[in-house]
Amino acid sequence: MDYQAILGQCCEMPVGFVQLPVGVAGPLLLDGRHYHVPMATTEGCLVASVNRGCRAIAASGGADSVLLRDAMSRAPVIKLPTAKRAAELKMFVEAPANFQALAAQFNKSSRFGRLQGIQCALAGRNLYMRFTCSTGDAMGMNMVSKGVENVLGYLLNNFPDMDVISISGNYCSDKKPTAVNWIEGRGKSVVCEATIKGSVVQSVLKTTVEKLVELNIVKNLAGSAVAGALGGFNAHASNIVTALFIATGQDPAQNVESSQCITMLEAVNDGNDLHISVTMPSIEVGTVGGGTCLASQSACLNLLGVKGPNHDSPGANAKLLATIVAGSVLAGELSLLAALAAGQLVKSHMKYNRSSKDVAKAAS
Amino acid sequence: MDYQAILGQCCEMPVGFVQLPVGVAGPLLLDGRHYHVPMATTEGCLVASVNRGCRAIAASGGADSVLLRDAMSRAPVIKLPTAKRAAELKMFVEAPANFQALAAQFNKSSRFGRLQGIQCALAGRNLYMRFTCSTGDAMGMNMVSKGVENVLGYLLNNFPDMDVISISGNYCSDKKPTAVNWIEGRGKSVVCEATIKGSVVQSVLKTTVEKLVELNIVKNLAGSAVAGALGGFNAHASNIVTALFIATGQDPAQNVESSQCITMLEAVNDGNDLHISVTMPSIEVGTVGGGTCLASQSACLNLLGVKGPNHDSPGANAKLLATIVAGSVLAGELSLLAALAAGQLVKSHMKYNRSSKDVAKAAS
Amino acid sequence: MDYQAILGQCCEMPVGFVQLPVGVAGPLLLDGRHYHVPMATTEGCLVASVNRGCRAIAASGGADSVLLRDAMSRAPVIKLPTAKRAAELKMFVEAPANFQALAAQFNKSSRFGRLQGIQCALAGRNLYMRFTCSTGDAMGMNMVSKGVENVLGYLLNNFPDMDVISISGNYCSDKKPTAVNWIEGRGKSVVCEATIKGSVVQSVLKTTVEKLVELNIVKNLAGSAVAGALGGFNAHASNIVTALFIATGQDPAQNVESSQCITMLEAVNDGNDLHISVTMPSIEVGTVGGGTCLASQSACLNLLGVKGPNHDSPGANAKLLATIVAGSVLAGELSLLAALAAGQLVKSHMKYNRSSKDVAKAAS
Amino acid sequence: MDYQAILGQCCEMPVGFVQLPVGVAGPLLLDGRHYHVPMATTEGCLVASVNRGCRAIAASGGADSVLLRDAMSRAPVIKLPTAKRAAELKMFVEAPANFQALAAQFNKSSRFGRLQGIQCALAGRNLYMRFTCSTGDAMGMNMVSKGVENVLGYLLNNFPDMDVISISGNYCSDKKPTAVNWIEGRGKSVVCEATIKGSVVQSVLKTTVEKLVELNIVKNLAGSAVAGALGGFNAHASNIVTALFIATGQDPAQNVESSQCITMLEAVNDGNDLHISVTMPSIEVGTVGGGTCLASQSACLNLLGVKGPNHDSPGANAKLLATIVAGSVLAGELSLLAALAAGQLVKSHMKYNRSSKDVAKAAS
Repeated sequence: MDYQAILGQCCEMPVGFVQLPVGVAGPLLLDGRHYHVPMATTEGCLVASVNRGCRAIAASGGADSVLLRDAMSRAPVIKLPTAKRAAELKMFVEAPANFQALAAQFNKSSRFGRLQGIQCALAGRNLYMRFTCSTGDAMGMNMVSKGVENVLGYLLNNFPDMDVISISGNYCSDKKPTAVNWIEGRGKSVVCEATIKGSVVQSVLKTTVEKLVELNIVKNLAGSAVAGALGGFNAHASNIVTALFIATGQDPAQNVESSQCITMLEAVNDGNDLHISVTMPSIEVGTVGGGTCLASQSACLNLLGVKGPNHDSPGANAKLLATIVAGSVLAGELSLLAALAAGQLVKSHMKYNRSSKDVAKAAS
Repeated sequence: MDYQAILGQCCEMPVGFVQLPVGVAGPLLLDGRHYHVPMATTEGCLVASVNRGCRAIAASGGADSVLLRDAMSRAPVIKLPTAKRAAELKMFVEAPANFQALAAQFNKSSRFGRLQGIQCALAGRNLYMRFTCSTGDAMGMNMVSKGVENVLGYLLNNFPDMDVISISGNYCSDKKPTAVNWIEGRGKSVVCEATIKGSVVQSVLKTTVEKLVELNIVKNLAGSAVAGALGGFNAHASNIVTALFIATGQDPAQNVESSQCITMLEAVNDGNDLHISVTMPSIEVGTVGGGTCLASQSACLNLLGVKGPNHDSPGANAKLLATIVAGSVLAGELSLLAALAAGQLVKSHMKYNRSSKDVAKAAS
Repeated sequence: MDYQAILGQCCEMPVGFVQLPVGVAGPLLLDGRHYHVPMATTEGCLVASVNRGCRAIAASGGADSVLLRDAMSRAPVIKLPTAKRAAELKMFVEAPANFQALAAQFNKSSRFGRLQGIQCALAGRNLYMRFTCSTGDAMGMNMVSKGVENVLGYLLNNFPDMDVISISGNYCSDKKPTAVNWIEGRGKSVVCEATIKGSVVQSVLKTTVEKLVELNIVKNLAGSAVAGALGGFNAHASNIVTALFIATGQDPAQNVESSQCITMLEAVNDGNDLHISVTMPSIEVGTVGGGTCLASQSACLNLLGVKGPNHDSPGANAKLLATIVAGSVLAGELSLLAALAAGQLVKSHMKYNRSSKDVAKAAS
Repeated sequence: MDYQAILGQCCEMPVGFVQLPVGVAGPLLLDGRHYHVPMATTEGCLVASVNRGCRAIAASGGADSVLLRDAMSRAPVIKLPTAKRAAELKMFVEAPANFQALAAQFNKSSRFGRLQGIQCALAGRNLYMRFTCSTGDAMGMNMVSKGVENVLGYLLNNFPDMDVISISGNYCSDKKPTAVNWIEGRGKSVVCEATIKGSVVQSVLKTTVEKLVELNIVKNLAGSAVAGALGGFNAHASNIVTALFIATGQDPAQNVESSQCITMLEAVNDGNDLHISVTMPSIEVGTVGGGTCLASQSACLNLLGVKGPNHDSPGANAKLLATIVAGSVLAGELSLLAALAAGQLVKSHMKYNRSSKDVAKAAS
């Protein structure tokens, strides 16, 4: 046990390690390249299911992804003497004329964190300022926090009546399911799509295009609407996000927003083939910092070819990892929806997920 | 590496293990007993922070918890020929007169799963039936799914025009942030509270009662309201839930709803002391099945005294684990809020969370 | 101007009346009967649009509705000394053994208000108790409030440490968009459906079944999901609810939740015909009290055959009115979706909605 | 009855008028001026309650407001062949380099509608483009729709594979409770505040600062959080918004989002006085078009001094109306919270809101 890698870095009062099995699904054919996707999980069927999704995708020519946005956020909350005064500070930080000066402050403590914008909201005389910035290959929470601290110090010169209540006012929002992340995005925003051939739907997924499309409407759209979901218009994005996050040293507590996802299915090509997409606005990943330094996590990043900082194109590794997350979610959605459409879920759970020792007795 | 514990149980296509460091916070003084809380995490400061919260709680006489509900849920979606017909099925399953017959079906495949109720929602002719049941010491997803399958088979006799679209219609809701879990609860619903002495707030938490109370209003209540949060009225419940879930072999993908939490702070005793509470309606935990069988996770459960099934009082171990989760969240909320109120966050992050090797360079 | 009908009844410091034009759409063929639907509105196209929807429905054999629930709610908030104590009060009021005694208290001040249930939620030591009851032909807010007051008085005997913070703790929820209404319902919960013949879709609605189905998925389901809607999975339910509410003397401020609606469209009969439904859990209406006593509103209720209390079957008038609201929304959804699918919206708005006097100049 | 003002303008198939009593609250002392606020309502107590709030505000020196934003929105939904292609269109319309060309198209059909921005969201290959623009003194839905049509026509040249599914894809969002309005605002975004003297709290509002502050936390913040509210962190904003909307010829169906509001209360000046604010991001009002042309509504606008277009400063009338809405909501919140804190609600409802004729019998 390498305590040096932990102490003063990522865990205090360590007593040991916990081990999670890692399975590998794939290859996932994404944007023309093959990836072997490491998943740390104890949920039976999960790796097998994603693996089947990968097979269906590969047999159909692969999936494609687009990165729509890349911006970590942090939103301090400041109390001003009056709402009028809070509005003045809002106008000040949102004024295009002031952007350069604020960005200069923000950017000075990091080579990678570059201020992108500041979006403000008020609750009376409390002002929430949501700073967004690029963060290179780091997930970027520390980077953005430092930049925010710089700006707050600078603003105090012009607004000496500012009372910084907290560096985070929950408008960020970190590790909470919130609309602001769903609407604005946090971390990487990715959309990923594939067209699955009708023949593959039949041979690999054991169901039909028509059934899958109907299931997605009734479950992922209408069902989640009825349940009052916020960004939860999917079957099990959280499963795949979490397994990949743990395997690759990400912060699994961030899967709350990182697994926000809307899954869309449509019949195309005269109803013969299936178009599937996942749209995920808030994937928070990095390839440096946090748990990425640990040996096994580092190995998993290596397996994906995204270990450490990308020196040629800073940020490229983290962006690629985000697209792999989305691609893996696509595979997972496809496979679980197929299993549900074919009525396989409970049976396969029963088969894979029980221990012959004590679980069976407990669960029966 | 014990592949026997994994294969056909909780991970397919295994290639190895990933290791997460486990730190121990505490002792947490909860309901008169002391617990050493294992947390698997790579987030610097987290264990230290929860530990400080535990110290403040213990120095103030401890925390108390109440279990409000214990019910796992699964909601299949059924399509009927018409909405009228869907309404008839709804009336049928909700009729008190039919409960015994439905419960008999539901309960027959498990010694522990006991049907508690069925709550229905419609979207036109699609009927979502949310079954809830007790599940002993298991988290219970398989158990409830099997019970639901039994009932669906039975209902088909009376409603042969039922079309079972899916065993899950997202009204359950598993691993998605939804209002139905926030309102109805899922798994264990727990409230936990403590009264922190003013002197302890000062000496251990380095801040004041007044500052903490104001921060909670501005950040956890108003800030989350402004952000459009759903059940995310807390500072970082997800951090503690996730770390405890991974350490004890729970399903970390379920932290999406398990970390739903509203944190309340109030000045009491003429403003001298602090009353703090966390209310968490959807803690999904078990002490058998899933990842609880693995060696290191099993050891962590053992550390807490909740390993395996409780033979004397089935379900008692899982319930106790849920209260420990809530108690640990209480400690975590207390400590982070104090750090924020005192402006310590960024500094301590900088100190603890960076590797001297490559992170520093990447992040600076 | 009949001040007697107003003073001390429904408006203070009156200076006169405001007049809203009433158009009549229909007949709406609903559950085998024809209704002429009065709508008070100043939105050009609205009555014409609902009227077209009614024609399409009638030409297809009519619409059918089901009342799923009938329960007005009020949720006081009580503070107890501790969360433990709040949990005890929760257990007490939710215990089946105590229901009769609580109902006896609740029911004593009204002939119609009959307690149906009490659902509790906690935020630490604050307890929110959501009382639901039937309310005859009244919308019922006063009735339920009086019942709640009775119960609170009774509970104080057993829980002298109760501190009634407010008769309403926003968990009711009145005139706010909340998940608890969407999940639990408030007032009348209604589903309404119709099967529109393909030939009617073409001749009356000027579009195709296929286009309508796709539009509903992309706009009312996915679009609202992307927008972070809460119960707003429809095109313009609020328009119809509001116009009918004002015409019939309802409280238009309650359209916030009364217009919560999920609209579903499906191709049926081998894709030839269109199945459409609206599911509305929170329609708050009455045919006595409030504005229903005023002359013109009373006339509109009379036009629908639901004026005043139903003496033979108390509550039947209010229930019927709720189904007419849903049926009218169905007509409105059908027609607007058709207009959008055919690209007619902006053009018709331009034609109908501008005054030749000053609006045109202002808007152009 | 002046049918000329209605036909072809704001209502089809008219059969007459419905009359709503108008009461006048105030004077409201706002930003140094006095306003007599017309409210069309049939809810007993409402005008009297707002009136009391106005008295408390005036006795404390008046309220102040700030307009934070002014932007009506419309979001068409476009389907592209692939998500990749949808992302390209997103990048195109969001590129700063293209803004001038798009704005030129947008702005050409109106003197007042000036494009402010385009915010895009994807659901797979469906692109939702939320256009925002200023709209002078009109509420602006037609204006923005026309501008959007212009831009869509222009974009078709560059993206001939665009399939315009609908001019509205619900990401606008009109008359639905959605997060996008709560986060981004729609129409006018206003914050309004006042500091109420402790002596006034006692003499006029019959309660204490301390009680009011606690009530607001427990009801408007925590209670709404527990209820799963979306932008409904207030006591009864919808009441005031609706009454003012109907009186002044606004579209009362838009109160769904126009009444989104977070109410904040704080003790200030060493706990002696009360600071209260309402923050309302989505007030949709105009002083031309729609129902503003009708005689009685026009008179109400005149009473407020905001009738018709403001020729000196186009848009100033509509903006002023929005601040009056917020100021009136402030008065209403203050007064209802005071009534609740003092336990007056049910009693005053009973006194004012029942007809001596049939309501009493029905409700008792």
